This record gives sequence, structure tokens and C-alpha cells, in this order.
Amino acid sequence: MKIRYSQLTITPGNPAKNYETCRQAALKAKKDGVNLLILPEMAIPGYLIGDKFEENDFIEDCEFFANELTKEATEDFSLIFGCVMFYETLSGKPRTGTDGRKVKLNTAWIATQNKTFYKVKTLLPNYREFEEPRHFKDNLWVKNSLPEWKMFTPYNIGGVSFGVLICEDGWDDDYDLKPFERTSEEGAQVLINLSYSPFTVGKNSSRNRRFSTHAKNLKKPVLYVNGLGLQNNGKTVFCFDGSSAAWNSKGELIAHSEMFKEEDVDFTLSGGELFADVPLNYKEKTEIEDIHSSLIYGIKNYMAQSGLKRVVIGASGGVDSTLAAALYSEAIGKENVLLVNMPTKFNSKTTISIAEKLAKNLGCWYTSVPISESAQLTSRQINGLKPKNAQGEEIEILLSGFNMENVQARDRGSRVLAAIASAWGGVFTNNGNKTETTVGYATLYGDVAGFLAAIGDLWKHTVYDLCRFINAKAGKEIVPIEVLTLKPSAELSDNQAVDKGLGDPLVYPYHDRLFEALQQWWNRASLTDILQHYLEGDLAAFLNQGKESDLTEDLIKTTFPDAKSFITDLERWYKLFKGMGVAKRIQAPPIIAVTRRAYGFDYRESAIQPYFTRKYLELKEKVLSNN
Amino acid sequence: MKIRYSQLTITPGNPAKNYETCRQAALKAKKDGVNLLILPEMAIPGYLIGDKFEENDFIEDCEFFANELTKEATEDFSLIFGCVMFYETLSGKPRTGTDGRKVKLNTAWIATQNKTFYKVKTLLPNYREFEEPRHFKDNLWVKNSLPEWKMFTPYNIGGVSFGVLICEDGWDDDYDLKPFERTSEEGAQVLINLSYSPFTVGKNSSRNRRFSTHAKNLKKPVLYVNGLGLQNNGKTVFCFDGSSAAWNSKGELIAHSEMFKEEDVDFTLSGGELFADVPLNYKEKTEIEDIHSSLIYGIKNYMAQSGLKRVVIGASGGVDSTLAAALYSEAIGKENVLLVNMPTKFNSKTTISIAEKLAKNLGCWYTSVPISESAQLTSRQINGLKPKNAQGEEIEILLSGFNMENVQARDRGSRVLAAIASAWGGVFTNNGNKTETTVGYATLYGDVAGFLAAIGDLWKHTVYDLCRFINAKAGKEIVPIEVLTLKPSAELSDNQAVDKGLGDPLVYPYHDRLFEALQQWWNRASLTDILQHYLEGDLAAFLNQGKESDLTEDLIKTTFPDAKSFITDLERWYKLFKGMGVAKRIQAPPIIAVTRRAYGFDYRESAIQPYFTRKYLELKEKVLSNN
Repeated sequence: MKIRYSQLTITPGNPAKNYETCRQAALKAKKDGVNLLILPEMAIPGYLIGDKFEENDFIEDCEFFANELTKEATEDFSLIFGCVMFYETLSGKPRTGTDGRKVKLNTAWIATQNKTFYKVKTLLPNYREFEEPRHFKDNLWVKNSLPEWKMFTPYNIGGVSFGVLICEDGWDDDYDLKPFERTSEEGAQVLINLSYSPFTVGKNSSRNRRFSTHAKNLKKPVLYVNGLGLQNNGKTVFCFDGSSAAWNSKGELIAHSEMFKEEDVDFTLSGGELFADVPLNYKEKTEIEDIHSSLIYGIKNYMAQSGLKRVVIGASGGVDSTLAAALYSEAIGKENVLLVNMPTKFNSKTTISIAEKLAKNLGCWYTSVPISESAQLTSRQINGLKPKNAQGEEIEILLSGFNMENVQARDRGSRVLAAIASAWGGVFTNNGNKTETTVGYATLYGDVAGFLAAIGDLWKHTVYDLCRFINAKAGKEIVPIEVLTLKPSAELSDNQAVDKGLGDPLVYPYHDRLFEALQQWWNRASLTDILQHYLEGDLAAFLNQGKESDLTEDLIKTTFPDAKSFITDLERWYKLFKGMGVAKRIQAPPIIAVTRRAYGFDYRESAIQPYFTRKYLELKEKVLSNN
Repeated sequence: MKIRYSQLTITPGNPAKNYETCRQAALKAKKDGVNLLILPEMAIPGYLIGDKFEENDFIEDCEFFANELTKEATEDFSLIFGCVMFYETLSGKPRTGTDGRKVKLNTAWIATQNKTFYKVKTLLPNYREFEEPRHFKDNLWVKNSLPEWKMFTPYNIGGVSFGVLICEDGWDDDYDLKPFERTSEEGAQVLINLSYSPFTVGKNSSRNRRFSTHAKNLKKPVLYVNGLGLQNNGKTVFCFDGSSAAWNSKGELIAHSEMFKEEDVDFTLSGGELFADVPLNYKEKTEIEDIHSSLIYGIKNYMAQSGLKRVVIGASGGVDSTLAAALYSEAIGKENVLLVNMPTKFNSKTTISIAEKLAKNLGCWYTSVPISESAQLTSRQINGLKPKNAQGEEIEILLSGFNMENVQARDRGSRVLAAIASAWGGVFTNNGNKTETTVGYATLYGDVAGFLAAIGDLWKHTVYDLCRFINAKAGKEIVPIEVLTLKPSAELSDNQAVDKGLGDPLVYPYHDRLFEALQQWWNRASLTDILQHYLEGDLAAFLNQGKESDLTEDLIKTTFPDAKSFITDLERWYKLFKGMGVAKRIQAPPIIAVTRRAYGFDYRESAIQPYFTRKYLELKEKVLSNN
């Protein structure tokens, strides 16, 4: 028996197009003598489409095209693919859910021998960006509604029993139901997992461990079939990387598709064992390689999906915009990238020459648009302005130095870059990193603006790592090496002069790890944890979590002369993280997710006042009164 | 037995403060000889706090303060209030949920006679802005985990059996479990519903019908206790209006608190019947009155929560900014409102004089900042700019008339208003209405900018209604009456000259209702529905849904000479609604929700290509080929 999986690209919200993609895969498979073709979860509707799942006419279209696709099945050819469907279609019984709308299910369609069977997803994830219970009922719910329903029965295809599972069904650690075990107990000889699961740093090794373990424990071959594509939930953009794979009944990896690559992989099933038709050729990549591939894929496809070709990048000569320029040039071509340097008197020759060199290294377009004249005009128009009321009383509007810093930042983003981008028929980019984004260290409508925050889920240290990786990969200087040793700075005032070693108020090796612990750890650190470890002298070890890092206990000691200064700094940034940072993120562009907690839909925030717990306040009180 | 409910204000994410508020209510109740005090759902943590529910140290603080509050109970005084708690605290058994985190519950704490009982919420809403299953397990889940658990047992307080339910437990139409009935069957003599439920147009009458019906059907008194406060989910801001009420065992309304007003209401329970201590004094308000109260409450509290006092409003002389100015002046005081008119040669004397009159009527601050010089500077700097690449090749950047329209819009928002606002120590407002917001008829970083979109959930016709309401309520002209008859226009080019009757491309009486059907109806209309009704000649009736409106079949006939022009218009706006509109909403400010589908967290959107279903395309094909 010949089995194939197709790692193909799914377009969110376009069943007509996805049907055509799947049908082509089916036609090819039939031509190639394949007996069973396996396609990803939600191959017809796409997955991240928001409340579009509430539109009945859309679901009807998905069912229609899924039905058409099942017609490709023949005596010798079966296929399995994922689709959404109404419970009514499955059961013949009309039924509304707790939102008053028709009940829908996330299902696998098994088309074999002129019959179609439906497998319902058992475990519906409801964390991070996932919210399947908002739209779907699960397998157990169907069982409770239809007493005759078989939850885990395998399907006979060509005399072999195939167990069919969907994505989260394989990630059962935290659930009571164990779909892999149950399906195996019901007699499945081969276990298939249809997935549509996005890239996250470290997820691929975790997938490999998990499905290998299922195969080994159950002593049955496992096929993990994941789709490709770029899908989003508005604020957060996810790269679906594929990385489909298969394991034999010993749990040994026998095939593994590359990330982000459309690919058909063929297997022979013989005597209950699965054999890949071509030898395994897979080497796990480093985290930074994976991040690089994801961002390139994300940028390229986000542009394509939005019908965009060209970007304008405000190139300050700092490391963030430099990285952005390098990534966009690689993803969409240097001829589609225009760097704009926008100096004032506060910008150093150093950074200007880095921006120029960057453009030269990349071969992209470059120009300079000074913003002093405009900043002066604004100052002239606004500073000293005297609004009046009906009684003739007046107030006076006075621009401070800090106000003028923000005027400059907005002038760059909303005046210069926006105008150039629209005139050139393109968009301009947001180059903020995750560290800045965490504490809102950026100006709304200034550097917070842009159509996409490509590096918005990278901590500052990863920004540097990625720059080094790009140079190493190219075997030459793409990122001007000066930028790697430059003091990070906004260059908006004399207090931020890079050539004098002045710059950002963030001590990145420390604050990167601190923010990561507060925002990104699955079991997030509390302020009490942080302060406690600081007092115990092992905060660097706590924050590093056994990973390599530039953060040392010494650095913490040097940065903070005493507990009071440590606490002041901690609370300063915590308040920004939970306060102004949130307000800015609400209006910030979409972020390409690479970590386990990207800002946006993956990490849901309300704009509320920062809160300090009793325990923290007691510990702080104790510390400060001892000082 | 004397019973009181306190309709009090809950601060999201601040258990220490909420504890103090509740404790004061308890102390007062004891002093007043009350035997049972009832407080709202989630009175300690607040409700819309996003993923803060994942922070264990926060939950611990909530439990601590809830525990402290139970200590107020005495021999003669019991109290019931809502709080979050760990399942482990309830059961003594550690347990993690499907997200790998400790299981949490939305509970009512019943503190009586030195004992505290916990009631778990049975029905967890998972639609619109609600996503309780993301954070909590429900009553049935607890029952499945603890066989001895009683799901619906009432609590004996002073010899009377009280059934305790939480919010959605009362809205059981679409659920299998019927908590009110079940609790009544278990012997409850009085039914209490603790709620924390936000204002939506029409919700209050629906609440009154529902709980009156429960009381009548079960022949038992019902107390509905809802909290006050402004809470948000980042993109969407909800006004929790209270409107607490009580019904006797015949289902007759015996008490009803005003919206948005802190209030204690006392009852006497005697012979199984509930009597209010003061006579009922309640008259249902009109929709427009309710919307007005909500927006005033929303603006006032959003400012206060954000630590803001002053706003700057770009006053164009159009109806949207005029309404915004009137609302802000009422909410935060005219002395905290500054109107800025920013004319170019395209702005008519008409609109400028409306803006001036508005400032006079309101008594707020006013100034004019022309933007021609800045627009010219941008044109001079950008138009004809010739970026080069390393080979010395060059491209030319040319600003079109349309580009210059956007330059002006951004100049107003991101340059002038932002600078004045920051200099004055305030923020500037977004004045977009829901109609524009739907199709993205506004410029990003221009009129899309602002700290809050106070009228972003109002269709254009409601904007007019609210203006008329404000004048009628004041008994004088607040909103200059000229604005009510003026042709809506952006005044960004000669094609939008209001004095020539030119203006927006939207035919509001039609497009308002069209967009409402596509976006806001619970069972949304599809494009096929729209086209079908157009062809049948009853589209106005279909869109009006029996409500009064300016939309007539004649207007549709006059606006669209034939089916082709109807379809062109329909697809034009649909593409913007699903395309550019989404992209702009991602970066738009928070909206105060008043309808059943506010943009943002209440209506989740992915940025995907607009999709036309088969049915629609077939119908369109048929129509066009017949033409």
C-alpha cells in the first residue's frame, strides 16, 4: 500500500482556492499510483480566520468544496483531509450552540470507496492564540449528543485500520482523554495526525519527541501531516511551518519535511510497518536558523497576501532597522526596498554612515530626508500657541524638550515614511523589537507605526544574534559590523549621543531576561520571585534558566548599587510594561510570532493599572526598612 | 430578614482596592441592620483583565482578600460576593487544566455563620468579548472531578434557602443545563444572580424580561445584582451599567437601580416573598438616552483610569468631531477640552464657522492651526525625491493628489494634534464613527489616530440622533444646527467641497444599514441575501428589520440605476470592509462598545482576502448575464 502526505500551502478563508490546491494534489497522487493521500487539518477553510467561522454561507462553501474533493476518491485511491462542518451535516440533526449559532466541528474527512467518514477533533486548544471552543464542539460533545457515535474507531482503508487524529489530539499531556491511546486500543494499525500548527521557537523538537513517543509506546507507525501558510489573528501573524514527519513502529524518525517547503512524501506500508520511499535526510536546525526562515517566510507571504511589493524602511543606523532592512531585502528583493535616513542635529555621523553602508551592502535604494525644518515648523506653529475660550481667556501651549523628541519621531514615521511609501506604491515597516515593545519605549504614530512588526517578537539579544547569523550565512558583511558594537540609542536628544557612549536607558542583557521572565515564561515569574532571587544573589541564574546569556550576577551587582535602586528600576519598567506599553500595543501593527507568547492575540491584555501584590509589597517593605 | 444589594464599582485587576470597597459596603450594611448583603460577580478581581488570570500570585491575592472579606460575616450578618479561586482551594486537590496551569473557577463566596461556601458558575460564555472557558472550568467539570460535589444546592441563611447563580447561569436558552430551574428544584426559596454584565443597546429590557420570567415560572423572588465599572479587553471598552433589579414571586419588578449609579437597595423577606423597602421608581429609558449615558460614563472613566484630564479634539466642523466635542465637554468639563481647527484651502467657511460656533456653545478652548505650510513642506521634500542605489541608478518619488490628501490627514493627527496634546499634558481623540470604521474610510496615523474612539461603535445615523438628543436634552443649541444638514465630507480636495453639495462617497441611509446587516446582526446577512433582496425589490425592508429608518426602496432605486451598479458598489465596500478596513482596525484605538458587535475583541478578525461564496458568484453571474 502506497501512502503519501502532501505538505501544501493553505490560504486562510478561501475554500475555493484550497479545494483547487487539494484537488491538484489528489490528481497527482492518483497519477503516481498512491493509494492513500493525507492532507493537513482545516485544509479547506484555513484555520486562523477569526469570527468568519460564524458565517454560515462560508461554512456551506467549505462543505461544498470538501464534498467535491471527496469525489476524487476511487476504488484504489482514498484521501483524508481536514475541514470545518456543521454538526447538522454529520448527524442530520439541526442544533445550535451556546452562542445561538449552528454547531460546527473541526473534522477530518476520510473519503474511501465512495463513502466519506467524519472524524471529530477530540481536544480543542483554548490558550495562547488558540480559541477553538469559541467556534467548535468536540468529539465528546458529539458522543453525548449522538449515543451511537464512535469516538475513536479507526477506518478501514485497503484492509488496514487507520486511526485518524487532529492536531491537539496528539498533545494530550494536560487532558483527561488520551486520543492516541484510545484510537490504538480500538485497533488502529497506523496513526495519522492531521495538523495545522504554527512555528514557535523550539516547537519542532518538541513535536518530534512527542510523536516519536506515541509511536514507540503504542508500537505503531505515526504520520504527522502539517500544513504551510501564513495566517493571522489580526494583531499576531503566525508562520505555519509544515515540518511534517513520520515514525515507524519503533518510534524511529523515517521522514521529515523541511520547514516552509511544499513537498509530497511517499511511504510504503507493508506488514504493519511504515517505510519511507526515500532515505531520511533531516538535520535539526539551530533556533536562530529557524527564526530566520520564519521571518523571511512571514515577510514574503504577508506582503504577497496583502498585495504589496515595496517597503520603505526608516534606517537610523541602529541595529533594529538594520536587521529589518536585511530581512526585507532577502525576502522581497533589494529592488523593492528603500532605506530612508532622516537625520537631525542629534544624529551622529556614525549612525548615518552605517545606514549608507547598509544600503550599499544590500544594494537597495537609499535616500536622506532631514527632518529639522519640519520639526522647526511644528515648534514655530505650536510652541506659544494661545487657544482662547468664548470669554477671551487664554492658555498657552509650550513644547518641552521631551515633547520635541516625540515630534521628531512622529515626523519620521507619519510624515516622511508614510508619504514616501504611499507615493512609491508601498508601505513602511515597523522595526521595533520585543524589549522596546514590552515597555512601550517608542513613540505612537512615530516608530510604533508601520504596516508590520517583523522583528516585534525578538528580544534585543536575538536581534544581535540574527544580525550575526545573516553575516555568517552570507559569508560576508551584510549587516555593517559597526552596528553590532554601537551603543543602542534613539538619538533624539543630546542625552542620547552614541559617540559619547550615551543611549537607551535599558541594560539589555538584564532587561531582556527580566521581561522574558515576566511576559514569556509559561509559568511567568512574579515580581516577588524576581525580588526574592535578587536578595538571594542568584537572580541571573534564575533568569537565565540554564541557558547561555550575557547576564551574570556581577552585571546585576554593578548595575544596581543597592536594593533600593534595584526596586526602583524594577517598578519603573513593570509600570511601563503594564501601563503605557499596553496602550501603545493596542495601536501597534501586527507582529510575526516566533516565541511562545507574542504580543497581541497570543497574550491578551487589558489596559488596567499595574498591580503590586501583597507579598511583593511586604517583601519590598522589609527590604527597604532594613536598608 | 433584611436583604441588601450594593451596586458598587469594581476596579479591574485591583483586589486590594475592591476588597476595601466591598468591606465598606459590609460595614455599612451591618450598621444598618442588614442580615444578608449581596455584591456582584467577580467583585474582588474584576472581570475583563485578559491573561492576568494566568498569574498565580494575582489569584492568590484575590483569594486572600476574599477570605478577609468573609471575616465580616457574623451571627446575624451574611454576605455573598463573586471572586476567582483555584480549584485546589475549593477541593484541596491540586489540579492543572488543559493549558498546563492551575485550574481556576469563577465562584460566588457565601459567607454565613463563620463558614464560607463556594458556588461555581455553571454556564461560561464564550462568544463576543467573553472567553471564560479560556480561564475557568465550570460547575459540571467540578462535579465530574469531585463526585460528592453538589452543583445546585441552595444555602441556608437565617433559615431561608438561597439559590446562588452567576451571570450567564440566568441566560440559559442556548444551554442544556438550566441552573435556575435546577436550583429551584433543589429547594431554593429565593434566587440570586450575581452578575458583571456590560451595557449593550437593548440589553436592559432583555434582562428585565428574562429574570422576570424566571421569577414567574419558578414562583420565587429573584435578585439580579450587577456591578458598575469600566473594563476593557484592550481594543474594546465596556461600560458595566449595573441596572440591578429584583422581582417578586409573581415576576413583578419591585426594584430597579439606575444605570451607572452606585446604590444600596434594601429588601424585606417575609413569608417567602420579597418586598422592596422603598417603592419602585423606574422608567425604561430610550436607546439614545442609554447610549448617551454609556458614552459619558465611558469617556469619564477611561480618562480617569488612564490618569488623564485633558483632551485635544480636531474640530473639522463635521458632525463626528462635533459630537465628540459635545460628549467630552459634558464628561470631563469644558475647561479640559481644546478644539483645534486645521484648515487648508479645501476647507469651507461653512465648516470653519461651525467649529468656532461649537467652541462657543461648549465654552471650551479653541484655536486654529492651518496646515498648508506643512503640507507644502512635505510636498517640497518628498515630491521629486530621487533615491539612488549603489550603482547610481535612481527612482523618482511622486506624490499624487490622493497621496496629498493623506499627507494632510496625517499632518493633522500625528503632527498638530499629537504635539498640542502632549504639550498640554493631554491626549487627542479619535472621532471616527462605525460606518467609516467598517470600510476604513479614514487615514492611518491621521484621523484613525487618537487615544480612544468614543463614537466608534455608532453608525452615522446614530451620530445624528445623538446630536439631536444632546440639543433636546439641553433645551438649547449645543451642537450647531447647521452641522445636522451639512453634507458629510472629508474636505481634503476640490471633489469634496461641501458648499457644492459634494462629499463622502457613502450614502449613509443605505450603507449604514447594509454594514449593520453584514457586521452587526447576530445572524449576519450574507452578500447573497443582500443581492437576492435587492433583486426582489425588498432590500430596504430586509435591512430595516421593521425598524424606522431613512432607508426606503425608492432610495435604493434612485441610488443604483441598475443591478450592475448595485453590485459594483456592494463589492467595492465589501472588499474594503474585509480588506483595508481590517488592516486599519488592527492599529486603531480602543472603541467604547454600545452595540452587540463592536470592532475589536467583540468581533475577531483576521486580515485575509475578501471571499465571495459560490452562491453569491452564481447569482451575480445570472443577474449580470440577464442585464
